[in-house]
Amino acid sequence: MAGAELWLPLLLAAACAGPAAALWPWPQSVRASDGRYPVSPRRFQFRYHDRSAAQPGCSVLDEAFQRYRRLLFGAESGRRPARTDTLTVNNEQCFLLSETVWGALRGLETFSQLVWRSPEGTFFINKTEIEDFPRFPHRGLLLDTSRHYLPLQSILDTLDAMAYSKFNVFHWHLVDDSSFPYESSAFPELTRKGSYNPATHIYTAQDVKEVIEYARLRGIRVLAEFDTPGHTLSWGRGVSGLLTPCYSGSQPSGTFGPVNPILNSTYEFMKTFFLEVSSVFPDFYLHLGGDEVDFACWKSNPDVQAFMKKKGFGNDFKQLESFYIQTLLDIVSAYGKGYVVWQEVFDNKVKVRPDTIIQVWREEAPVSYLKELALITEAGFRALLSAPWYLNRISYGPDWEDFYKVDPLSFEGGPEQKALVIGGEACMWGEYVDSTNLVPRLWPRAGAVAERLWSNKEVTDPDFAFKRLAHFRCELLRRGVQAQPLSVGYCEQEFEQT
Amino acid sequence: MAGAELWLPLLLAAACAGPAAALWPWPQSVRASDGRYPVSPRRFQFRYHDRSAAQPGCSVLDEAFQRYRRLLFGAESGRRPARTDTLTVNNEQCFLLSETVWGALRGLETFSQLVWRSPEGTFFINKTEIEDFPRFPHRGLLLDTSRHYLPLQSILDTLDAMAYSKFNVFHWHLVDDSSFPYESSAFPELTRKGSYNPATHIYTAQDVKEVIEYARLRGIRVLAEFDTPGHTLSWGRGVSGLLTPCYSGSQPSGTFGPVNPILNSTYEFMKTFFLEVSSVFPDFYLHLGGDEVDFACWKSNPDVQAFMKKKGFGNDFKQLESFYIQTLLDIVSAYGKGYVVWQEVFDNKVKVRPDTIIQVWREEAPVSYLKELALITEAGFRALLSAPWYLNRISYGPDWEDFYKVDPLSFEGGPEQKALVIGGEACMWGEYVDSTNLVPRLWPRAGAVAERLWSNKEVTDPDFAFKRLAHFRCELLRRGVQAQPLSVGYCEQEFEQT
Repeated sequence: MAGAELWLPLLLAAACAGPAAALWPWPQSVRASDGRYPVSPRRFQFRYHDRSAAQPGCSVLDEAFQRYRRLLFGAESGRRPARTDTLTVNNEQCFLLSETVWGALRGLETFSQLVWRSPEGTFFINKTEIEDFPRFPHRGLLLDTSRHYLPLQSILDTLDAMAYSKFNVFHWHLVDDSSFPYESSAFPELTRKGSYNPATHIYTAQDVKEVIEYARLRGIRVLAEFDTPGHTLSWGRGVSGLLTPCYSGSQPSGTFGPVNPILNSTYEFMKTFFLEVSSVFPDFYLHLGGDEVDFACWKSNPDVQAFMKKKGFGNDFKQLESFYIQTLLDIVSAYGKGYVVWQEVFDNKVKVRPDTIIQVWREEAPVSYLKELALITEAGFRALLSAPWYLNRISYGPDWEDFYKVDPLSFEGGPEQKALVIGGEACMWGEYVDSTNLVPRLWPRAGAVAERLWSNKEVTDPDFAFKRLAHFRCELLRRGVQAQPLSVGYCEQEFEQT
Repeated sequence: MAGAELWLPLLLAAACAGPAAALWPWPQSVRASDGRYPVSPRRFQFRYHDRSAAQPGCSVLDEAFQRYRRLLFGAESGRRPARTDTLTVNNEQCFLLSETVWGALRGLETFSQLVWRSPEGTFFINKTEIEDFPRFPHRGLLLDTSRHYLPLQSILDTLDAMAYSKFNVFHWHLVDDSSFPYESSAFPELTRKGSYNPATHIYTAQDVKEVIEYARLRGIRVLAEFDTPGHTLSWGRGVSGLLTPCYSGSQPSGTFGPVNPILNSTYEFMKTFFLEVSSVFPDFYLHLGGDEVDFACWKSNPDVQAFMKKKGFGNDFKQLESFYIQTLLDIVSAYGKGYVVWQEVFDNKVKVRPDTIIQVWREEAPVSYLKELALITEAGFRALLSAPWYLNRISYGPDWEDFYKVDPLSFEGGPEQKALVIGGEACMWGEYVDSTNLVPRLWPRAGAVAERLWSNKEVTDPDFAFKRLAHFRCELLRRGVQAQPLSVGYCEQEFEQT
């Protein structure tokens, strides 16, 4: 849809003053006034403008109109009149102009945050003009479904809440050492033997489709990660010979290390597996991992040692890692995919395609994350920042402020380098997180990252942010998201278990 | 019921081996074996023994039998046969012998943790003999309903989960600076003006009754706290003249400090208020607070200064605090109540009745909490420990181990001093906690405190504890408690939002 002009006239004058002051994330430009207009749930309508390139039948917007009607008016949205030609209420309308349907989705979210309700129950919107666009194009949130399985519903609920704060990338860390819940059609044994429970703790092909479509309708891309060569213990249970046998002295110890990089069978497996993955996940990008490869097992294995010698790698196991990753990247490239990798791939000087995106996750080593961003962009690569945004890590009190204070561009480097930082991701790793505590740990804390990636770099005042984030948290409760409190106080509508 | 002998023969041989190894908290003595008996939900019955002092009509046990039948067999408990005279299954029975109904409740909980289910769905119990009693008589959990309001259902759910880990005191920190949700019949303005919202954020007389009865049926006492003279800002909104007007120079600043200790009207109010409270809460003990009194406002007030002079207190505001508290304690004593107070009352040398219980909450100041316990018991007072068990404080990872490691009796002192430590309390203060995050923050972390207060002092091995606590956490999920994970892994039955 890019480039097409989309007009979305809403049946109300655009507006705000009370609630505009509470928008999250804060728009690039807001002009609000005290003038307010009542909004009648019975008469309110979303309409496509005659001149809009999008028209009824555009599933993304048709469904968004229904969602936002429910979010705006709750139970009263049920009393929805048949479509009528009466276009105006008091001749007042609210216009939403966007170049893409995705931008229109963001605008609908902003619009929904502008409508407020008086103590008497009347809905209002204030006269408002907003111009908006994101500071960074990649605003991601990572969920880890390996250390703990997350039910499909938890993922879908997270996508809803992501849309409320304008996240647009769901980074799905599907598998890891602990379990392999992704059901592969090419290798069903991966799940059968690698999941916690193949009857209950897996994502079927249908589940994956549902996640991708649910995300798409909310303007969210799904970036699937299949991390290798480390973090793969659970793969080994279903594919014999895939992992490196570790040795104790001259005998195999019975334990296994990273993917075995010296066998042709490994690459044959990866070819077939990533062919499937490339077609299951439609996004241009795949995340190929590449973090935290432990060399101890490779070092212990005599066959690996012989391979190193043959290849002339000496004792530099980083060269072996590079060999594996370069071969894998070539495989995935051949399928017409781009890739994201963790920073070690860059740190270890693997030769990667120039369009590779490097994700920074280490806070201090080998260098501070800001220095790392400088190095990556200096080398001409695009970068994503995650290091300061590990939401699974918790501490007592208002730790959202620490996430909020970060500026991804506060490293030394020229404007062409800054332009290569395409955004960042909040990460919720699963060591201590499952569906029992995911939601209150995510929200509203992830919101701090969402605003940092969306709003203008000048939007940094913590008091202004606190007031709006506290308001946004109450709005999350109203929408059924179990978001935890920021501080002492209450919301008019508290969370109710349903 | 104390002293009466209660026989509770269950229709099964007492038993265990698999599941006995997973009991939480760990009993004083367990003899288990591999011999197992099937348990048929259709034929299983709880029965009072003929020689038992308790018989049908004992509401505490009648209702507990129903609860535990549901917990044991879930949906299948519905197929409950009419009572029959057939007493035995294969002539096998399980006996529970207890001196009190409260002990019988604890035994039923232990019994429920012994029953397990095979992969085929058959219930089993292993042959087991258990002797059990608590190490400490006071095993409390504090909820704060002032910083954030907790819905009645959250409190009731917490009482259920408390019973699962054998807590027996619910310390209800009802009111504080932030809000006054307790609806007083004598002073309805307290709630009307002091609550967050008098329509939705209050506890009515009926709510309070329900909490007390729900707790009683689970063997839990309700220890109500009305903290004065500090922590009372919310009281001031409904009772003019109750709080001390603070001065800025020679003028009232418009702000208020602690309860005004120099006015007769203050004590008249307290007499009426605590007369009501003493009858609403049937427990012998009330908690009267007494912590963190800020002297700055008293110091600023010329009337208070004049009063100090008249009383000969000099500049020692601790004497003024003592004057207030002693007067209050006399009032409450006259109503036939005992009292618990925070440690400052002892630290500030207030003269209190010898049966006063002092609750230790400060970790390091004025002395370490262990030294404080030594000082309190040396002075002949009974003590409760809370300092190391502030569950609201969180950190990343398995922090339950820190709670678990504490031994309340590891201070220097003779056996007569140790005997004065009657237990402790886990505290969940509400600055950052409401119904959205209460449950995963409480469970299973509070379980670590529960076992420390119940089990023998020799039960300290962290690996043994980890395995059992992880199992207990899965059992909590099965029972519908949103308990967070301890580590990587899964439960057969994960949490499902209902």
